[in-house]
Amino acid sequence: MIRGVLLDLAGVVYEGDHVLPGAIEAIARLHAAGLPLRFVTNTTTKTKQALLARLSGLGLEITGEELFTPGQAARAWLSKHHATPELLVHPDLEEEFAGLPKQERRAVVVGDAGEAFTYDNLNRAFRALIDGADLLALAKNRTFKGDDGKLSLDAGAFVTALEYATGKEATVLGKPSPDFFSSALASMGCAPAEAVMVGDDAEADVAGSLHAGFGCALLVRTGKYRDGDETRFAPHPTATVADLPAAVQWIVAQLS
Amino acid sequence: MIRGVLLDLAGVVYEGDHVLPGAIEAIARLHAAGLPLRFVTNTTTKTKQALLARLSGLGLEITGEELFTPGQAARAWLSKHHATPELLVHPDLEEEFAGLPKQERRAVVVGDAGEAFTYDNLNRAFRALIDGADLLALAKNRTFKGDDGKLSLDAGAFVTALEYATGKEATVLGKPSPDFFSSALASMGCAPAEAVMVGDDAEADVAGSLHAGFGCALLVRTGKYRDGDETRFAPHPTATVADLPAAVQWIVAQLS
Repeated sequence: MIRGVLLDLAGVVYEGDHVLPGAIEAIARLHAAGLPLRFVTNTTTKTKQALLARLSGLGLEITGEELFTPGQAARAWLSKHHATPELLVHPDLEEEFAGLPKQERRAVVVGDAGEAFTYDNLNRAFRALIDGADLLALAKNRTFKGDDGKLSLDAGAFVTALEYATGKEATVLGKPSPDFFSSALASMGCAPAEAVMVGDDAEADVAGSLHAGFGCALLVRTGKYRDGDETRFAPHPTATVADLPAAVQWIVAQLS
Repeated sequence: MIRGVLLDLAGVVYEGDHVLPGAIEAIARLHAAGLPLRFVTNTTTKTKQALLARLSGLGLEITGEELFTPGQAARAWLSKHHATPELLVHPDLEEEFAGLPKQERRAVVVGDAGEAFTYDNLNRAFRALIDGADLLALAKNRTFKGDDGKLSLDAGAFVTALEYATGKEATVLGKPSPDFFSSALASMGCAPAEAVMVGDDAEADVAGSLHAGFGCALLVRTGKYRDGDETRFAPHPTATVADLPAAVQWIVAQLS
């Protein structure tokens, strides 16, 4: 029985600067079906506030309580563990970490830094790590589809580079971290077995949520989806569908 | 019985722009003991010719036949497999690949590109790989100690990043590739079991040569050596000694 839905954003609801066809209506249909809904994104190039504003501009009004980002999870981790961040993130995300008190413990925070992934910045992070800092990955996604439509290296490639060079293992804060999924589920009082995840990332969204005990996970063939993704990572999706409207159709069909 | 010696260069014979203390004399002592000797380096920031010239400037006269570099191994691989390189290497190494005929098969060649490890260049390599190119790693070393005395990220971190993002596995051409070691051994007619490797990299030099069947491998506490390296990778070194003169002392003692 499905009692809650988690949706990925980029590649599922929107892509670049436009909403994907039928996405707004599909979300309205979930609301109309009485299904609680949360948005879980691994986007780390914007603060949560900037992301909410962007979504509003695209015609998608969601509240801060309905959106879960790796940035906010990282900030919570830093507060809980009394650590000061060493940021290797997109300049637009830095504000998410403003005002944290200075602590002796340090943690290198890696997001999708884009052009800021320079050799110098990577070496600065590397040296902080061998000097004792923790390694926090906002996400460990392998690739993303940029606004130019091309696949690019995502944060996971650089997290892996730092893990390889230092022998340290990163703590992953966004998807597929079970803690990240369970924060979103807890906010709507939904057990994992009663939840469905919809995403375009066969690994972080689909295999990740199934590993976390979700009842179902749907892979959409939009966004970064590439042929064969449905069998590339285990567990495989419960179903692979064309897009978000098709995913919602599938979900609503389970309710009757 | 030891019948041949392989020496690493950077961190063992020289560091930055100076020869390490006693290194020239230690090499002369190996010659005097009648032991054939080859130099195997994972340095990929210079062509083989430029490296020979640098060594000559430091007072170390060796011939092209005595020196084995990943660049020459890569060039041989490209010729054998009829592939055109897509270079992600230090600008000073590009000349090593000049004049290769244009082929349909492509191979991304990753070395220690340093500042040329930009996000754009990494994405260009990434896209060639998902478009079908092979992945060749000149080396997969994790770190190196630069002329400034600081540890920096070596090619291996970036090779691993590309492997993670593409799901491809790199063919490693330099140490610890068994083919690389065996080319050097074959040139002096020495069987692996009769060979000793001396290096400052507990993984590529020491564990790598022991994996390739070497009789002994010595770890020196110069160069990139860090406390605990002798137990960080398996197999462990046959012995861990202060520096190259101590290593030669150890080797010569085995002969009697």
